[in-house]
Amino acid sequence: MNFKIVSYILGWVLRIEAVCMLVPCVIALALGENTWTAFLIAITVAAVPGLFLGRKKLRTGNFFIREGYAATGLSWLVISLVGALPFFLSRRIPSFVDAFFEIISGFTTTGSSILSDVEALGKGLLFWRSFSHWIGGMGVLVLLLAILPMNSGYHMQFMKAESPGPAVSKLVPRTSDTAKVLYSIYIALTLIMIIAYMISGMPLYDAVCIGFGTAGTGGFAVRNSGMADYGTVSQILITVFMILFGVNFNVYYLILRKKTGSALKSEELRAYIIYIAVVIAIIAGLVFFRNYRAEGFGYSLHHSAFTVASVISTTGFSTVDFDAWPELAKLLLLVTMVLGACAGSTGGGMKVSRVLLLLKQAARELKILIHPQSVSIVHFDHKPVEHSVIRSVNDFLIFYVLICIGSLLLISIDGFDLTTNLSAVLATLNNIGPGLGKVGPMLNYSGYSDFSKLVLSFNMLAGRLELLPMLMLFYRRTWTKYH
Amino acid sequence: MNFKIVSYILGWVLRIEAVCMLVPCVIALALGENTWTAFLIAITVAAVPGLFLGRKKLRTGNFFIREGYAATGLSWLVISLVGALPFFLSRRIPSFVDAFFEIISGFTTTGSSILSDVEALGKGLLFWRSFSHWIGGMGVLVLLLAILPMNSGYHMQFMKAESPGPAVSKLVPRTSDTAKVLYSIYIALTLIMIIAYMISGMPLYDAVCIGFGTAGTGGFAVRNSGMADYGTVSQILITVFMILFGVNFNVYYLILRKKTGSALKSEELRAYIIYIAVVIAIIAGLVFFRNYRAEGFGYSLHHSAFTVASVISTTGFSTVDFDAWPELAKLLLLVTMVLGACAGSTGGGMKVSRVLLLLKQAARELKILIHPQSVSIVHFDHKPVEHSVIRSVNDFLIFYVLICIGSLLLISIDGFDLTTNLSAVLATLNNIGPGLGKVGPMLNYSGYSDFSKLVLSFNMLAGRLELLPMLMLFYRRTWTKYH
Repeated sequence: MNFKIVSYILGWVLRIEAVCMLVPCVIALALGENTWTAFLIAITVAAVPGLFLGRKKLRTGNFFIREGYAATGLSWLVISLVGALPFFLSRRIPSFVDAFFEIISGFTTTGSSILSDVEALGKGLLFWRSFSHWIGGMGVLVLLLAILPMNSGYHMQFMKAESPGPAVSKLVPRTSDTAKVLYSIYIALTLIMIIAYMISGMPLYDAVCIGFGTAGTGGFAVRNSGMADYGTVSQILITVFMILFGVNFNVYYLILRKKTGSALKSEELRAYIIYIAVVIAIIAGLVFFRNYRAEGFGYSLHHSAFTVASVISTTGFSTVDFDAWPELAKLLLLVTMVLGACAGSTGGGMKVSRVLLLLKQAARELKILIHPQSVSIVHFDHKPVEHSVIRSVNDFLIFYVLICIGSLLLISIDGFDLTTNLSAVLATLNNIGPGLGKVGPMLNYSGYSDFSKLVLSFNMLAGRLELLPMLMLFYRRTWTKYH
Repeated sequence: MNFKIVSYILGWVLRIEAVCMLVPCVIALALGENTWTAFLIAITVAAVPGLFLGRKKLRTGNFFIREGYAATGLSWLVISLVGALPFFLSRRIPSFVDAFFEIISGFTTTGSSILSDVEALGKGLLFWRSFSHWIGGMGVLVLLLAILPMNSGYHMQFMKAESPGPAVSKLVPRTSDTAKVLYSIYIALTLIMIIAYMISGMPLYDAVCIGFGTAGTGGFAVRNSGMADYGTVSQILITVFMILFGVNFNVYYLILRKKTGSALKSEELRAYIIYIAVVIAIIAGLVFFRNYRAEGFGYSLHHSAFTVASVISTTGFSTVDFDAWPELAKLLLLVTMVLGACAGSTGGGMKVSRVLLLLKQAARELKILIHPQSVSIVHFDHKPVEHSVIRSVNDFLIFYVLICIGSLLLISIDGFDLTTNLSAVLATLNNIGPGLGKVGPMLNYSGYSDFSKLVLSFNMLAGRLELLPMLMLFYRRTWTKYH
């Protein structure tokens, strides 16, 4: 392990976090909220080691996958520890574990909360909570790549560790340019969305915060009523933008480069759109007949579309209590949670392309059983898929199942029912937010013990970083010296 | 598809079934139960096409994996359709779907029942129900291999299709001899067990039927009280024999050949024994403090051991209502259901060796991430594992997850809660029997709709035949002609 480079990276990540926390600090100060002092302390805690560790110019040295993964895993842990301080120091969240859970839920764009009264936080802390979604959505190391001149060998390792999906695709030859392009699209889309939200009648503050939550596919609300207060037009806009932020950003890049034709040919995009349409149709039918007959089919369709968009993009906003929906609808939502959004988006879950690859592999195996002599290679977007990608997808499935079972066993010590526990594990591991039962959309995670909250925090980080960077932190060999 | 050979195999399987049904027919006749006429009709229905189809001598021709799998899948479907007749024609189970579910549950050694009053069946039908466990435990096609002279090329395909585990191991060079050895060990162990049960105080009829259920790791009882009526010594004996029948039969063969040393070095056997010991210890502790403080630790240990042995061997006998146990204990039982017994045993589940291979593969992948240049091959029992085995284990996991999710969605239409549905899917797919919630050990599967019962029947067959033979029946290419 090359500790020098890892601490240099940590220093720069802390610098970025200090700058980010300046914004809510100023908001709190301007609105006369006393939480600004807590922000100031947190900024100091981030800035001092940040300036110290990031001071030395980066020298060449060993920088392999393990450095990339370890630096990424540690960076996310450290920004969460520091990012929890404003909540904890201001005493708005008196337990540090709760504050830690809340900000991890923010950075990982999960949106699971331990709060029942979010408005009590004040606008400064609420802004920080939502802003963390936006930072975590595209990734803090991708941001670092975009702004910091670094040895190009390092770039790919960070993209691999922080970008979601089975394989990293570089939009442009240089990784640092790819990071710049990604952040430019991200900022532009976010601005367009905020303006659209304001036109639909949302106040500026809400539009910005809900915009951050939509862009990062996070899900924190700024009102106790969740999304129910906003008008129908606003809700429809949120539905559309949630779906848009679940799309691979490659698609937007191709459209910008006037290659709309090839953008729309993406197998993943097509599967994503078709899946959304089918599931909305099924759920709208189910809830119309069982729940909202009086309110009409339009009402059913509206809320089904909002909920499905919220779950597949792993945002986690809610307009209604879907825990009261029929079993089949709830189960479809759980399956959709596991599926998640497209690779290369800000969404979580297993990713559509990864699931497509698993399905294609399964189909190939059946074909090989029938025709043992035939050569059958999995294709994706009309290109043959490398064996290493197939293998990484299989590994992902194994680690995913193991983490699911392990964390399910650990949190079941608290004694909640299986529906609550299973949906809590899936909602955190896939970065959704609300689950079912006692962690349903109208409830929160405060009932779990501190131990379970830490287990679920691990799940959120593992889900956001796609398992391996977090697993590697707990692997002895990661920390051995080179010899 | 070589239909001629498949129908020849079907003919012989029906002949075997006709002979098997003679036994309960005679029992019913001797005891003056009027169900013997139903058996007689069923025997005729099996024998007439059986004699006709099995009449032609087997000619050489195309016989590949697809013929082996299709013949196996179809054989199991056909013997279940015919085997359901005695229940249905005697009107003791008035619905054919229920009778079909019950006998599939028998042949697949699942032990899930739709009956609340089993004693009402009469001793002839109860014998058939338990006997089906014994036939299905070692497999009807393995029996066919043992008794029918066949082209040796066919043998391996049947062993692959019907024997549980990631790879088929031949005990002796010729597959037909392997089948003979397996059945000899099976019969001998069953006889020893029945005698032991009788010495412990069980009546002859109960000892034989419960013996069939233990040997096949089935789980059907012959009393409404389940296993609760039998004395403590009998229950301890059942515990021990359930664990023994979950062991790979290779181990017994090696012991018979006086190679006890190498038998006990089996990694799978060790993992199986250690896992059982650890889980019994955890559950005994949990239920002592939460459920059976008054009854004492011995009571907790006794029933925990019985339940864990019953679940890991996928037998499904029960002495107590484990649905009332703490959440962690119930979840551990669910995980143990998925794990299952050893490969090459009569038990179901994913199999210990398959899970070990998945874990080893996961560990190897972490190691390769740290040392990308290192060559790392998965070893099992000190031998390198072939790539094809690793691939088949990965495929198994994919298909397993897909079948779980698919069947969970289909049965959730009935509107039961997630705990009931998930445990029903896992209990049938892993051939356990009882689940949790509304399908808990003191309840049964009669609440599900006919559609759900058929879905769960598919799961039982898919679980027993390790997924592929059943999946291939629904795959268009399986039925295409050779060209």
